[in-house]
Amino acid sequence: QHDERIPPETELFIKEEDPETSLYISTRLHREKQGFNQENIYFDTSPQAVRLYLLYNHWLSKVLLYFFILLDLSLAIFEEPAVFSLPIWATMLVELLCLLAFTIRLVHYAKVIPRDKFWKDPKNICIILTLVDMIIYGALKATNCYGVRWSRVLRPLLLINVTEGRQLRRAFRSIRNALPQIFYVFLLFMFSVLIFSLMALKLLGKRGLKTIDGAPYFTNYLEIVFDLYVLVTTANSPDVMMPAYNASFVFAIFFIVYILINTYIFMSVFLAVVYNNYKKYLKEEVRQLVRAKRHKMARAFAVLQEQREEGGELVVTQANWNQVVRLVRPDISNAHRELLWSVSDDKNQGSIGKVAFVQLADLLNIEVITLKSRPHPLHSLCPAFYLSAPSRLLCRIVQHRAFVIVYDLIILVNAVFIGLDEENPMIANSEWVFLALYLLEILLKLYVFEPRAFFSRHSFWNWFDTIIVISALIATIVNSAMKSSGGYTSRQILDIVFILRVLRLIRVVDSIQRFRAIINTLIRIGPMILTFGQLIIVVYYVFAMLGMELFKGKVKFFEDPNDPAKAYCGNPLLKDTAFAQLNYCKNNFNNVVSSFILLLELTVVNQCSGFATVTHISARIFFVLFHILVVIVIINIFVAFVLEAFFVEYSVDKSDLQTSLERKIEELELAVEQEKMEDNLVNAMETIDNDLGTGQSPTANKPSLMFKIASKRYRTVDALLQRMFEADLDPEDFAENDDQNGNFANPTFSSV
Amino acid sequence: QHDERIPPETELFIKEEDPETSLYISTRLHREKQGFNQENIYFDTSPQAVRLYLLYNHWLSKVLLYFFILLDLSLAIFEEPAVFSLPIWATMLVELLCLLAFTIRLVHYAKVIPRDKFWKDPKNICIILTLVDMIIYGALKATNCYGVRWSRVLRPLLLINVTEGRQLRRAFRSIRNALPQIFYVFLLFMFSVLIFSLMALKLLGKRGLKTIDGAPYFTNYLEIVFDLYVLVTTANSPDVMMPAYNASFVFAIFFIVYILINTYIFMSVFLAVVYNNYKKYLKEEVRQLVRAKRHKMARAFAVLQEQREEGGELVVTQANWNQVVRLVRPDISNAHRELLWSVSDDKNQGSIGKVAFVQLADLLNIEVITLKSRPHPLHSLCPAFYLSAPSRLLCRIVQHRAFVIVYDLIILVNAVFIGLDEENPMIANSEWVFLALYLLEILLKLYVFEPRAFFSRHSFWNWFDTIIVISALIATIVNSAMKSSGGYTSRQILDIVFILRVLRLIRVVDSIQRFRAIINTLIRIGPMILTFGQLIIVVYYVFAMLGMELFKGKVKFFEDPNDPAKAYCGNPLLKDTAFAQLNYCKNNFNNVVSSFILLLELTVVNQCSGFATVTHISARIFFVLFHILVVIVIINIFVAFVLEAFFVEYSVDKSDLQTSLERKIEELELAVEQEKMEDNLVNAMETIDNDLGTGQSPTANKPSLMFKIASKRYRTVDALLQRMFEADLDPEDFAENDDQNGNFANPTFSSV
Repeated sequence: QHDERIPPETELFIKEEDPETSLYISTRLHREKQGFNQENIYFDTSPQAVRLYLLYNHWLSKVLLYFFILLDLSLAIFEEPAVFSLPIWATMLVELLCLLAFTIRLVHYAKVIPRDKFWKDPKNICIILTLVDMIIYGALKATNCYGVRWSRVLRPLLLINVTEGRQLRRAFRSIRNALPQIFYVFLLFMFSVLIFSLMALKLLGKRGLKTIDGAPYFTNYLEIVFDLYVLVTTANSPDVMMPAYNASFVFAIFFIVYILINTYIFMSVFLAVVYNNYKKYLKEEVRQLVRAKRHKMARAFAVLQEQREEGGELVVTQANWNQVVRLVRPDISNAHRELLWSVSDDKNQGSIGKVAFVQLADLLNIEVITLKSRPHPLHSLCPAFYLSAPSRLLCRIVQHRAFVIVYDLIILVNAVFIGLDEENPMIANSEWVFLALYLLEILLKLYVFEPRAFFSRHSFWNWFDTIIVISALIATIVNSAMKSSGGYTSRQILDIVFILRVLRLIRVVDSIQRFRAIINTLIRIGPMILTFGQLIIVVYYVFAMLGMELFKGKVKFFEDPNDPAKAYCGNPLLKDTAFAQLNYCKNNFNNVVSSFILLLELTVVNQCSGFATVTHISARIFFVLFHILVVIVIINIFVAFVLEAFFVEYSVDKSDLQTSLERKIEELELAVEQEKMEDNLVNAMETIDNDLGTGQSPTANKPSLMFKIASKRYRTVDALLQRMFEADLDPEDFAENDDQNGNFANPTFSSV
Repeated sequence: QHDERIPPETELFIKEEDPETSLYISTRLHREKQGFNQENIYFDTSPQAVRLYLLYNHWLSKVLLYFFILLDLSLAIFEEPAVFSLPIWATMLVELLCLLAFTIRLVHYAKVIPRDKFWKDPKNICIILTLVDMIIYGALKATNCYGVRWSRVLRPLLLINVTEGRQLRRAFRSIRNALPQIFYVFLLFMFSVLIFSLMALKLLGKRGLKTIDGAPYFTNYLEIVFDLYVLVTTANSPDVMMPAYNASFVFAIFFIVYILINTYIFMSVFLAVVYNNYKKYLKEEVRQLVRAKRHKMARAFAVLQEQREEGGELVVTQANWNQVVRLVRPDISNAHRELLWSVSDDKNQGSIGKVAFVQLADLLNIEVITLKSRPHPLHSLCPAFYLSAPSRLLCRIVQHRAFVIVYDLIILVNAVFIGLDEENPMIANSEWVFLALYLLEILLKLYVFEPRAFFSRHSFWNWFDTIIVISALIATIVNSAMKSSGGYTSRQILDIVFILRVLRLIRVVDSIQRFRAIINTLIRIGPMILTFGQLIIVVYYVFAMLGMELFKGKVKFFEDPNDPAKAYCGNPLLKDTAFAQLNYCKNNFNNVVSSFILLLELTVVNQCSGFATVTHISARIFFVLFHILVVIVIINIFVAFVLEAFFVEYSVDKSDLQTSLERKIEELELAVEQEKMEDNLVNAMETIDNDLGTGQSPTANKPSLMFKIASKRYRTVDALLQRMFEADLDPEDFAENDDQNGNFANPTFSSV
């Protein structure tokens, strides 16, 4: 009853993130190599199918895909209204090329999934629509008619549909699922705004009040609704209230009640609803994802299982296990693999059962740092010198707490010097002193600590320091060389030097433990924030395309300060408006870069009076829609996400699985001392290396290889999500029922 | 080892909210009346002590206390700078009177709590400080010296210290507990602002850019820090960025990164930290509160307990239980009491054990609505008429769904008519038609439904409708009478008429179930929002007093539009500033009302440039402090609270205890049909009365008395809080250990 081809597309395209899919496929390959007969074949493992699969998931084809998506998106820079104008045929040609690339990718995709699923996919429609639009537009342009490239708004959808960005899809699904709930609250909110507007019209409309511009105040119902809506965004507070307040302070009560209800209470309710829905649906998705994972692992187990003795349990032998893990993760060391095996095979039986095997995917997701207790190179090269009394004293000084404090003080003094005027030659030369001091610090640390440990992958601050100091050194030297040779100072290089100098100061934060904890949490949720960044870019791109069609050229910015048109942004309609007076002319939709910056400003404060003036009052709909979508929905989901991530950090202990791995590490006496690990979670390496690298501490009786779990850092975003909702998952649920009824859907690929 | 007096003050002053304290005291009184010998007396139950206690908790003494607090606070209206000026001796006299009242209350308090606890109380110091300040100020004024009434900032603290506002104290404690965590995040946030400012100084300071006013742009470090801090509040976006953005769009990246990190990420982190701490400490407090409650109930049980047979369980008999409950809650009906007993005495043994007795306090907290199935008065008076065919038809029409829909449509048409110009005589007269229609609706409903059920305490919308319609009728009649008699229209009465008309439209919301659910949640969290209102008023009052000392008279508002000083708010320093141009002159600290309104504006958008201009640049500190305290701390706690309340609504089911009560009600066949209850939670009365009131439905075989639980509505805020954290509380924990070790502290009265 199963497909003969590699069946649910779900199992194919998530290799990058899922060790379990990879494990499943590798398991089958491994069995085939062993010459086993596949009794119940689930999918096609013919060389051709596997080659297709591997090619689809090859890093090069993914890089190419992302390149074409970026190319397609960046066409907006060259199309009218353009930053750098290119002829239409050139951009059209590039877009055709991109579409071709997407089509090839799609055909490739169609080869590996069932045909009926392929045709339901929305991305096919995107490509076809784009093609149709290009043909129409080309024809219109050829006949000199006015045409609109409306399919440009579809481009960012490719980012969601063509790529394997499961985080982005998930975020989109969360939003879609939360929409009905948000919609009801929004209706109630709008009802409240309408009622308040009606009250404002009745109370204030007949009093003959005037705004500062001398216009009648609160006489038009739709104007009032819009003004009060903008008041919710706090953009026009207190201006909108001043005429009424000047008439009588009693009217202030009206505005106070309005702000309390609509800005504070309703906006909190929006956050609550968005947060609640986000959590609910995410939980359901992660639950399904974990079920899918376990299901795949159970199937992999079914392929590898052996019966050691008659009537005994079905098990997987260590030899098979080893070969599979080596296939799946060729990057992990033998020692690490042995550690994983000893965790799985708790009772040292030489084989593991189903439950232990299913855990393997989770174990592979835990980031284990292998610490090699290497002696310092100098220690090996000339031990007499490196172990001499002055050298040992130096090591002790550098490792002392005071060394850190002294350098923190140097950084603070440096901050003061940066703040002072750099035209002063004394100050300018002091920069060399500071650079020398920082360089000395890095050299001293390299002398004391083992260099490979110092520059290990997780030593974020060491890398940060070194890169910043070296770059600053290079930039300063280049700058001085240019200055002394031609007397010419490059503004750009100076800017870079300044930025690097200031960035160096951030280092201070790392010395204070409380700060480090907060920053580590922020670094951990970084990847998730990037997902929201993509989401925002998708929405911004669509609105930028729309905005450019609607408002391009309406507001112009003049570089020349003497141009008389500058005072009214090149549009007579803007004469004497606040928009022109505040010099907002550069906030326009004249090209894609300006549009993005303007949309960001609108996210912060929704001010759009200028654009309604230059076009039509209905242009406000564009801005209100943008506000609803970005501020009420997306920003709230972002805040909800940050909240959730911080709660997880505050409340959830390490997961059980991780603890079992840690227990095993400790049991085998391979653990780095706990107290040293706790004070610095992500980047404890530096501290730990104190002991491991110097070669002076009594590590002689310790094993030369040690493990450490990057305890709060997960290899994948899914693992973090799984951890968030772990409490609700049953560890014994293998999702085996789903195997039979066939409607086993991995949420990753359900349509967006 | 126990005090002989009524000991921990905690047990004394919470009667209003806690049935358990009341129960405990009543239990002892009841036993004394029965002539029982109190074997182990915990506190003084002599007639004198009880009289003192009852007097202290008498509603009149509480009302008097609140009256004096209000009087004391409202003195700010009459003191310089005053709204209505009174001579100093008058305000001083009133303040002395208030202080006297507080002192009497304190002495009374001292009589009922142990002496050592009394002197540690901070409110004593407040009173003494106020007295000292009044003497100094009086002396200075008498000698015509300049004096500052600095003790005025202490006044709102009385609101926290003297009253029994446990919610307010709890909110303050939450804030105090969350402060260290917030402080560290705040330091990091300020560090980020300082680093960005330094970078801005280096990047933009030397480019010779100008602001719109022509001032140099970003050349002073402290100015930059302030500007960037204000940018976090979004008040000066995009103005602060425009000069740099106009120079090059690359600089926009700087501001984008700044806003992303400091406005979005850090503000979310603040919310997360505040929320997390708030939840953590609240949980701990509620846990202690529940323990205290159970402890008191266990002690009450110990007083009443009897051993029915040798070696049997200790129990409380129904007779004793009945008398105690009657003492504690004389307001509940016999039927309700019997219901509670039958819930407690589940097995009908005539006595209850400890666990069941301890639940009594929770049972009393569940609001049970007793529905009396009374026939309609007309049914009793002239049944022939009331049961005639046309009358029955009318009843059926009014109860039909279409009747509600028709009236919703009428309301919508009314909304359109309100929006139209009321000068039109047709429109003006239509108002009478609508009034008549609404009145007809109420009369019809009163004809169909039993009037006492229609106006029962929980029929929020019925009350709302009737009051609004009757008030509108009266106001409209008064208005017409004035108009036709003297041709004179009172603006105030017209305003009231307009407001009432618009408020009537809110009724529509109740017809849509989704909206009703949201609004019911909002109504339920209403009392908590009021607590935050008090908190805000305390902070506003302190800042208003400070602001009035610092800025009074600096900015003046002129009613006369022709006054030349109006253009610069009466202060030449403000000439040509944005503050004066935008006509913000009424935003001043010249009296307490203006100050409060201004502080509210500052909460929404922190704009203070005007006040720094008229005084000194350091005045900004006042505004930054206000922003930190109100927006970062209090508003975040408010948002956290709304979030939590909504999550409770979404996720928590009815508490177990409530369900047992409901089970019992259903078992006894006293329940109102479930399906009718579900569609309208708080105000289902109207629907239910359909059957109960008409007398036509076949209720003959039903009991004449029915119960209904106001399912999601709790009698006290504490019960709601307890429900929030119920999952973490052990129902069998009687806190009996605390009895021995003596450090049993009720959190309510730990110092603020």
